[in-house]
Amino acid sequence: MNPGRLETFADGVFAIAATLLILNVDAQVAGDVPNLGDRLTHIWPSYLAYAVSFVTIGIMWVNHHWVMAQIDRTNRTFLFANIGLLLCIAFVPFPTRLVAEHIRSAGARDAALAYGFTMVATAVMFSVTWFYASLGRRLLRADADSAVVSGISRSYLPGPWIYLGATLLAFLSPTASVLLFLAIAVFYVLESSLFGN
Amino acid sequence: MNPGRLETFADGVFAIAATLLILNVDAQVAGDVPNLGDRLTHIWPSYLAYAVSFVTIGIMWVNHHWVMAQIDRTNRTFLFANIGLLLCIAFVPFPTRLVAEHIRSAGARDAALAYGFTMVATAVMFSVTWFYASLGRRLLRADADSAVVSGISRSYLPGPWIYLGATLLAFLSPTASVLLFLAIAVFYVLESSLFGN
Amino acid sequence: MNPGRLETFADGVFAIAATLLILNVDAQVAGDVPNLGDRLTHIWPSYLAYAVSFVTIGIMWVNHHWVMAQIDRTNRTFLFANIGLLLCIAFVPFPTRLVAEHIRSAGARDAALAYGFTMVATAVMFSVTWFYASLGRRLLRADADSAVVSGISRSYLPGPWIYLGATLLAFLSPTASVLLFLAIAVFYVLESSLFGN
Amino acid sequence: MNPGRLETFADGVFAIAATLLILNVDAQVAGDVPNLGDRLTHIWPSYLAYAVSFVTIGIMWVNHHWVMAQIDRTNRTFLFANIGLLLCIAFVPFPTRLVAEHIRSAGARDAALAYGFTMVATAVMFSVTWFYASLGRRLLRADADSAVVSGISRSYLPGPWIYLGATLLAFLSPTASVLLFLAIAVFYVLESSLFGN
Repeated sequence: MNPGRLETFADGVFAIAATLLILNVDAQVAGDVPNLGDRLTHIWPSYLAYAVSFVTIGIMWVNHHWVMAQIDRTNRTFLFANIGLLLCIAFVPFPTRLVAEHIRSAGARDAALAYGFTMVATAVMFSVTWFYASLGRRLLRADADSAVVSGISRSYLPGPWIYLGATLLAFLSPTASVLLFLAIAVFYVLESSLFGN
Repeated sequence: MNPGRLETFADGVFAIAATLLILNVDAQVAGDVPNLGDRLTHIWPSYLAYAVSFVTIGIMWVNHHWVMAQIDRTNRTFLFANIGLLLCIAFVPFPTRLVAEHIRSAGARDAALAYGFTMVATAVMFSVTWFYASLGRRLLRADADSAVVSGISRSYLPGPWIYLGATLLAFLSPTASVLLFLAIAVFYVLESSLFGN
Repeated sequence: MNPGRLETFADGVFAIAATLLILNVDAQVAGDVPNLGDRLTHIWPSYLAYAVSFVTIGIMWVNHHWVMAQIDRTNRTFLFANIGLLLCIAFVPFPTRLVAEHIRSAGARDAALAYGFTMVATAVMFSVTWFYASLGRRLLRADADSAVVSGISRSYLPGPWIYLGATLLAFLSPTASVLLFLAIAVFYVLESSLFGN
Repeated sequence: MNPGRLETFADGVFAIAATLLILNVDAQVAGDVPNLGDRLTHIWPSYLAYAVSFVTIGIMWVNHHWVMAQIDRTNRTFLFANIGLLLCIAFVPFPTRLVAEHIRSAGARDAALAYGFTMVATAVMFSVTWFYASLGRRLLRADADSAVVSGISRSYLPGPWIYLGATLLAFLSPTASVLLFLAIAVFYVLESSLFGN
């Protein structure tokens, strides 16, 4: 399969996972609501969670294309690695809702852990996908720039560990863990807007 | 990333956000309905809200392509500006449902404000996206027509302010505010059908 | 906008509207179900409605491409006519659920009417879209075959009237009306498989 | 219609069906949850069902492209066969939820049968689609490799029967039936990763 078809399928999953996030917000205002304004104010974590997860999925989409731009051809193993990666990304709306609904109650730690481990799994699958394709330049384009390739490798190696740290922080403070994921997303957007190409 | 891939992703979000709007109508007829005909008549604001938001998302999709047709290349900042824009557009189904369900009850003002501020945020992100790309012709095609470029700029400058006015009108009359958004959409479709290219 | 971009957006709406139909079946088996087998048997109209609407949306998708294959360029009016058409198609999951849930109860007539009028509106929008593009060959390709063009025109003219007849039949018998829509879909698939190209 | 447009539509349905699977997991944690951690642990079959169905849909997507890569052109019959195939694939989220929710209760057998027969129907439609296109090389590319074509034919012939066997196993043991579907997916991924191209 040529890489273009994989990109089309992946783009679909990214776009749908991001757009489905609004259903989480929507479910927070159901049935009879005595005071709509109070309710809309009360659910502010849902808006924040929506924005963080939407931008995070957006970052992953940008990264995925940056990887695919180095790819010359695919094989079955690479396709299934990508399906595993997309499986993780399509899972994101679920822990996003958990965090939004439970971060202010007794379930905060469990919700933050669910969110964190989803991010760890996603980062692991990103690494698996990339290193499978790039080791020995197995599936890379002949003209893929060595500096770009080793740059991606360098940036992917610490990814799962950073996310794992942010996840385990939930045992101390679920709120701190969630804010760290927010900070990682904000930092990434600012950093690549200022220094990226 | 070439602009084509951004368009594919954006098209996906536009298409999904528009198609998800039907879930709002669907949720209005749930469980046991003693008299289906009465219920289907009673929820007429849901049909109207569905149509207005569908057409509004359609207008935004047309506008987005008109912008992208002037773009030669993307960078990270432009991609993230677009992700911010799509984040607003994917949010539209939520306030659409609020308006449909609450416009005839005590929550009308809050629902109209939620709808209005979503539109203001979307218009702001459209401006951010466009002016980032077009200032100094940063990302424009070398052959982008100056008249078209300044035409887009001229039409985008008042956008957020018109929407802000329509939004604040909700403090006086939520119904008038919502009808004004409907009128803007109808006017836009008629005007560009009659005078657009 | 070139026709290819319109096709991408339209394909997205067709695919999402068709795939969302499963949510209607899904909602029929919610909460505690004492006897799953009985429940799965009892909801057989949902399977049938799913299949009929899926195939009907599929037929519309095939027709839309057949139309688009004759189109050389688009303009704003044509884009908005298409958005109106897609608005109708994205609406289909709602009356599909109404029919599936109410065809055996007091709401049968209202459900059948809702389904029928959605189909009539869709057929009208198909005609509007086509005749706007084809009158005086306004947007057609220079090499569009006259026999094909007049063939499409001939087949579109009676469409809304046939659907209107099937809809009004619901006043006599909702079941007959629904079965007629099923028969139209089956006939269309068989007829174009046997005689189409 | 050229095969590319069919692939775009099919990719959309595959991507949406896979991404909608998360709604099944999501529905398992609704309303007030006294102990979120316990709940998240208790619903482990939902995670497994999500993963198995996501990967199964991914496998079908890979297979569909492998088929389409041999196709030179389409006709109406082939399009409707594909719509029938996609109808089955878009159905998968429903029995997936049934299995996840009922495999540990009285409805296990019925849930496993629903899942199994959906898989049988999908395999049958895959065979119909393929053999319609390949018999007498009706729609194949002139340069389609005979070894590849007969390889696909050989691998598709037993498909429905293997799935039927796994389905009927549910009468003896629903759990064994479901585990067999899991094993088939795992085997397929491993086998094509190790020996596929």
